[in-house]
Amino acid sequence: MIARDLAEPYPHVTTDDQAVDAVRLLAEHDLAALLVLERDGTPYAVVPGSQLVRQLVPEYVMEDPLLAAVIDDRHADSLTEALAGKTVAQWIPARAFKPAFVGPEAGALQIAALMARTHVPLVAVIDRDDDGRRLVGVVSAASLMRHLLDVGGQG
Amino acid sequence: MIARDLAEPYPHVTTDDQAVDAVRLLAEHDLAALLVLERDGTPYAVVPGSQLVRQLVPEYVMEDPLLAAVIDDRHADSLTEALAGKTVAQWIPARAFKPAFVGPEAGALQIAALMARTHVPLVAVIDRDDDGRRLVGVVSAASLMRHLLDVGGQG
Repeated sequence: MIARDLAEPYPHVTTDDQAVDAVRLLAEHDLAALLVLERDGTPYAVVPGSQLVRQLVPEYVMEDPLLAAVIDDRHADSLTEALAGKTVAQWIPARAFKPAFVGPEAGALQIAALMARTHVPLVAVIDRDDDGRRLVGVVSAASLMRHLLDVGGQG
Repeated sequence: MIARDLAEPYPHVTTDDQAVDAVRLLAEHDLAALLVLERDGTPYAVVPGSQLVRQLVPEYVMEDPLLAAVIDDRHADSLTEALAGKTVAQWIPARAFKPAFVGPEAGALQIAALMARTHVPLVAVIDRDDDGRRLVGVVSAASLMRHLLDVGGQG
């Protein structure tokens, strides 16, 4: 089976959506990663859950683990306050979270290797035509495993 | 809110379960990570989806991305064949996937910082008493964000 057939729709936000809605999407659907699309539907970023959490932790806390242990929970207010009014594009640096992608003809093993190498559990499947790039869908780690188990079951 | 209150049950396998059932659990529940417990209920490993996929990709393919692109999908048979008859403990090296954990009194920010640093979207909450260590539950990236959004909403 190739990427075109493995690709599925996945919940997403766009770069213009509110950052807080991006957090809400991941939280409500228990998503492994956040998929962000540009206005034209091409992928802007894919952020694993642990790294979306990272975007909420102040830099001075990341640099000092002991500090994280003593700052109490009331600080959580300011974590989400930092999101207020920001769009996804303003909050998430595209450069840090470039989506991994393959063409529609890529095989399951190629997608698996890419996922493993990038440590990101979503690979975008992109088609190129005369009008530019178009998102066919995404392959998640879970859907890839569903496919591999089916193949193995028949073998 | 502290770790004790944030901790929730999470689908898991044990070290004695079949490796193929571990893959099936992640696939069927769209889990962000696989939680593996020892027989006594203490955490053995936490494996993010992308790295569980990694465990299915042969080493020679990881080392040569061009090879992944040309090996076709029939190879997927042998990926799951490699799992056949193996237990989770035989398949997943504990050393590579040591679970991140906190005590029951850890705060949300401490958990967030740990998750961000380890790149693993599950943190185990462990209580120590006279009988040894006991798993209280786990905090996922999604559940942590649900909590942070609630706090922010009240602030």
